[in-house]
Amino acid sequence: MKPPIAGIFTPNMVPLDRHGDIDEAELRRYVDWLVDRGVHGLYPNGSTGEFTRFTAEERRRTIQIVCHQVRGRVPVLAGAAEANVRETLAACEAYCEYGARAVAIVSPFYYKLSPESVYAYFREIALHSPIDVTLYNIPLFASPIDVPTIRRLSEFPRVIGIKDSSGDMAFMLRMMAAVQPIRPDFVFLTGWEAALVPMLLMGCQGGTNATSGVVPEVTRKMYDLVLARQIDAARTLQLRLLELFDAMLLSADFPEGFRAAAELRGFNFGKSRQPLSDSQQIDRTGLKRVLQCILADFGLTDAPGEGCAPRVGAMPHDRIAQITTQVLDQLRKQGVL
Amino acid sequence: MKPPIAGIFTPNMVPLDRHGDIDEAELRRYVDWLVDRGVHGLYPNGSTGEFTRFTAEERRRTIQIVCHQVRGRVPVLAGAAEANVRETLAACEAYCEYGARAVAIVSPFYYKLSPESVYAYFREIALHSPIDVTLYNIPLFASPIDVPTIRRLSEFPRVIGIKDSSGDMAFMLRMMAAVQPIRPDFVFLTGWEAALVPMLLMGCQGGTNATSGVVPEVTRKMYDLVLARQIDAARTLQLRLLELFDAMLLSADFPEGFRAAAELRGFNFGKSRQPLSDSQQIDRTGLKRVLQCILADFGLTDAPGEGCAPRVGAMPHDRIAQITTQVLDQLRKQGVL
Amino acid sequence: MKPPIAGIFTPNMVPLDRHGDIDEAELRRYVDWLVDRGVHGLYPNGSTGEFTRFTAEERRRTIQIVCHQVRGRVPVLAGAAEANVRETLAACEAYCEYGARAVAIVSPFYYKLSPESVYAYFREIALHSPIDVTLYNIPLFASPIDVPTIRRLSEFPRVIGIKDSSGDMAFMLRMMAAVQPIRPDFVFLTGWEAALVPMLLMGCQGGTNATSGVVPEVTRKMYDLVLARQIDAARTLQLRLLELFDAMLLSADFPEGFRAAAELRGFNFGKSRQPLSDSQQIDRTGLKRVLQCILADFGLTDAPGEGCAPRVGAMPHDRIAQITTQVLDQLRKQGVL
Amino acid sequence: MKPPIAGIFTPNMVPLDRHGDIDEAELRRYVDWLVDRGVHGLYPNGSTGEFTRFTAEERRRTIQIVCHQVRGRVPVLAGAAEANVRETLAACEAYCEYGARAVAIVSPFYYKLSPESVYAYFREIALHSPIDVTLYNIPLFASPIDVPTIRRLSEFPRVIGIKDSSGDMAFMLRMMAAVQPIRPDFVFLTGWEAALVPMLLMGCQGGTNATSGVVPEVTRKMYDLVLARQIDAARTLQLRLLELFDAMLLSADFPEGFRAAAELRGFNFGKSRQPLSDSQQIDRTGLKRVLQCILADFGLTDAPGEGCAPRVGAMPHDRIAQITTQVLDQLRKQGVL
Repeated sequence: MKPPIAGIFTPNMVPLDRHGDIDEAELRRYVDWLVDRGVHGLYPNGSTGEFTRFTAEERRRTIQIVCHQVRGRVPVLAGAAEANVRETLAACEAYCEYGARAVAIVSPFYYKLSPESVYAYFREIALHSPIDVTLYNIPLFASPIDVPTIRRLSEFPRVIGIKDSSGDMAFMLRMMAAVQPIRPDFVFLTGWEAALVPMLLMGCQGGTNATSGVVPEVTRKMYDLVLARQIDAARTLQLRLLELFDAMLLSADFPEGFRAAAELRGFNFGKSRQPLSDSQQIDRTGLKRVLQCILADFGLTDAPGEGCAPRVGAMPHDRIAQITTQVLDQLRKQGVL
Repeated sequence: MKPPIAGIFTPNMVPLDRHGDIDEAELRRYVDWLVDRGVHGLYPNGSTGEFTRFTAEERRRTIQIVCHQVRGRVPVLAGAAEANVRETLAACEAYCEYGARAVAIVSPFYYKLSPESVYAYFREIALHSPIDVTLYNIPLFASPIDVPTIRRLSEFPRVIGIKDSSGDMAFMLRMMAAVQPIRPDFVFLTGWEAALVPMLLMGCQGGTNATSGVVPEVTRKMYDLVLARQIDAARTLQLRLLELFDAMLLSADFPEGFRAAAELRGFNFGKSRQPLSDSQQIDRTGLKRVLQCILADFGLTDAPGEGCAPRVGAMPHDRIAQITTQVLDQLRKQGVL
Repeated sequence: MKPPIAGIFTPNMVPLDRHGDIDEAELRRYVDWLVDRGVHGLYPNGSTGEFTRFTAEERRRTIQIVCHQVRGRVPVLAGAAEANVRETLAACEAYCEYGARAVAIVSPFYYKLSPESVYAYFREIALHSPIDVTLYNIPLFASPIDVPTIRRLSEFPRVIGIKDSSGDMAFMLRMMAAVQPIRPDFVFLTGWEAALVPMLLMGCQGGTNATSGVVPEVTRKMYDLVLARQIDAARTLQLRLLELFDAMLLSADFPEGFRAAAELRGFNFGKSRQPLSDSQQIDRTGLKRVLQCILADFGLTDAPGEGCAPRVGAMPHDRIAQITTQVLDQLRKQGVL
Repeated sequence: MKPPIAGIFTPNMVPLDRHGDIDEAELRRYVDWLVDRGVHGLYPNGSTGEFTRFTAEERRRTIQIVCHQVRGRVPVLAGAAEANVRETLAACEAYCEYGARAVAIVSPFYYKLSPESVYAYFREIALHSPIDVTLYNIPLFASPIDVPTIRRLSEFPRVIGIKDSSGDMAFMLRMMAAVQPIRPDFVFLTGWEAALVPMLLMGCQGGTNATSGVVPEVTRKMYDLVLARQIDAARTLQLRLLELFDAMLLSADFPEGFRAAAELRGFNFGKSRQPLSDSQQIDRTGLKRVLQCILADFGLTDAPGEGCAPRVGAMPHDRIAQITTQVLDQLRKQGVL
């Protein structure tokens, strides 16, 4: 009897060495660090793990390393999406053998598919997978999985849950209303930690949250506070987490901000496979300083030597907007524009 | 000292007589009915009240009737958006005189304005309004009000809160994080009852919810349950409300479904100012039968004489999809397509 | 027998005096200037004319002045959208009496209506209007009018054409393919001068183009070149017009950039009814300098005294982007971000 | 000296055998058929060719077969996007060796990247590719490439052009205005045949159009008519092509409708790698009947034995809409909804 999937799963990133290849030693060290800090599970080959930027062989290697290193301490949810159903099923078989608890399969991407096609795709996988399947809905990046499709797919025993990264609370409730009457054991995980506390309060069993790869202590604490129904404390932590999340999400193309923040926890993730321009390199240096200030407030790093500017809500953005406007005006006066 | 704005405000609809004019007697009867059923306030001239489909004179008349009929039993939040700042300020003055507690002003619509323009518009109003102002953010219909703009506008004492109908939980939390440190008294109301319970749990003081014009007893109960921290009972009611909300929202162009449902509670709203086509008329008849079944489940109406089909989550939609597909196939076989 | 609608119609702006009221004398002077420069018609109360920012009374006054001043020299297409069908029909009657050639009615806005509702709305108007009706499709601001709806509405003799501001070439061709077989006289006007030449080449009879209120000589020339099948010359002018159009459209909230440019042709449009913030005021001053440089290249104004920076394609934007990035980096180094 | 890229390139599909593997013999037969019917070039591994549904090895095999079969009769534009820059460059090297004229590389997809990241990605490729590179902009599926980014990338000699599938005429003109002053030889291809004729008229050198894989005779004719400046004849053909294009595009998930149509020309493309549900299978059968009627009108196939319904513009859609509405009403009456 397999353990139910619940709690905070980390969609872990993959460190690269100076040749741009998977840095196995660092990945193993990162896995141990996450497990030690209380994450309930790992989720390699997710969006945060940049699965699309690795080859099919590298994706398998990642799962193999993670499963081996975890040694059953926590369950592994293995991202298994490949080029087509046949390749995806082959990955499912391999990951089953490596000891993964279940696979997570993102809805088909690139093409925008209709609900009927999304259904047909997952149906084929549900019928033939040797391992439990979690649907992965991320409408920002992939074909959306709508409520009727989820309900239809919940009729397959192999489909045990859904990870939803839409961040849409009403959508989550609609899924629950549609599925729970016929499949009370179906697992709902949120991939949008900006609303982690309210999602948990409304019945999600957990989340797969990139931020837990940076501050696993904090996301674990939020989860425990919700379980203990300490709503006010959980809400306070949610608002603080939001500042960190937004800084990582909005200051660089996803998931570069999360890589930068995780480096501050003592890991070397290497150069991203998505090249950075010169100005992005400089931006990243500035971003790390801000992230260090936020992490220092959580007591998880030291503050940077040069100190931190006060951060009050959205104020810095306003100041930047003002200064940018002044600069643009100056440029216009000089006839550049 | 004015009472703080909190609880469930009803964005009440306006009954029309057989000439298409405001049916004052029915409006007064509807106002009494809502107050008797426990709504905390009224919100005439909102989106549900179809403010854009009335003339400037009719909008004033509506506020006058509602304020007069309420006689101070509950506060009135008066929608005051007019063609431009000058006209809007004139409406603010009139509504102040009629006894409204505050006005709600939607962000400029038709044109999609930049944050700077949205700021400039509300700034002008905040500086000159004789009555408290609530911002109204409904990005589906009007220029969005973003977080930095809300924070800047929260510096004006006249601006006392915001009604947000985006339904975006993370956005609500971001607003709170940005504004509460400098304006702890700022009021956050949600206009999206599909997420009413989690919004209240995360700190909203209340909501302006069209559904409360149909089932004021239910939305009031949800509010009370959250206040009593009876989360499980509140969640159960939220899931049931969602079925009603979706039926009203998705089966006809807004707000016709809400008008149809409110009629089932014993009011005559007359013919909509937005004409219905013949097929829409027939659809509306069918919709009312479904709505009556849902309301009967709440114990608020009798079930229709011909009985109700079982409703299990999203199933009916699937069945319709299947049947529609079969019909389309049939048509294709006949060469119509 | 009424003349067919064809050619470039100017959606003329309305000058305001220092009290913010319609400046009748300046409006009359502007009308004469446009007619003298060869526009084929006028289109008051359009989006460029900011019809939503005037009261119902002011909208009538505008049509009255324009029709009176034009004295039949060119046809007037009068924007007639009001709060609801009854009010819109009353406007149609008034504008018919004032001597307008036809009315243009924008699809219902604020609410996002379904095709069936859009049809029902226009059907009601088509059945009762005493004056020819042109549909106005501007999906960016109002409920879209889709191809099947246009075809259905083309069955009403009162509906004589459509003005489409989507800028979508394939959509224009789809409309033509659907309507022309049953209504060969139906008029197709484009409201998107960024594609004016190709739209005319593919069969549009003309356009209602805000830019013609700034450079009526140029848009007229483009129209004449297409008629003479001088495609290369027309294309060259199209590319040059695009620079002006983009500068007006992208550098300020619509239609403020068009107002700024028209001022350079010698008219005083007064302060906009949509307030400008301090920084927007400064931006506007800078924008006028750039616009003056572009207009000087057309030989329509003098170059500004301080001279013009070279403009090569999109280069200035890149330079600004670079400089802005450097400034933001600087801010980050100072810990502001 | 390599020949310039111009004319209609076919983004050819890849036939599969009954095991789901590449059907080499049928692919070679299809290549010959296309070349014989006058396409100016081939474009394997495009979106129409479902490049994402093949493995990296299969993508190479496809290019190898196509280049070998073409034997220099027409140039091959080889889709070369792989998981990351390193893999993409390896593909570029291979395709150079196989004899491709150039590669086409789609903007990074799945993640939505900022312009700066898109620039950094293509910059790396432009610096190291041994073969000419065509940018591929398809904002519906991949990160958009904006005008300033295209201008910056046009500074690299290796980047020789762009294929744009946005269908946005104004965007095409903006690119031309930005790039042609500094790179007069830059090639602009449109991937949106719904606007093929106007795009060619406004200066595109050609297109990569899925429809040319179905009716190569027709797209070639359209190209020749534009070159001969026979605008009216070209426009007539454009309107007719639109009916075929819309039927293929809108009646099934892309590119299944194009596969179904190409089968009518005598090829066996096998079962799609994206599974079809039972109802989609039935839909496909109906769609093929409609497509056969359209192709018969072009004189390219026989009409189906059971005859064809008259097709007048968008009328059939209306009739279907009406019938569907009636069915839904019926369902509502029966209490299903």
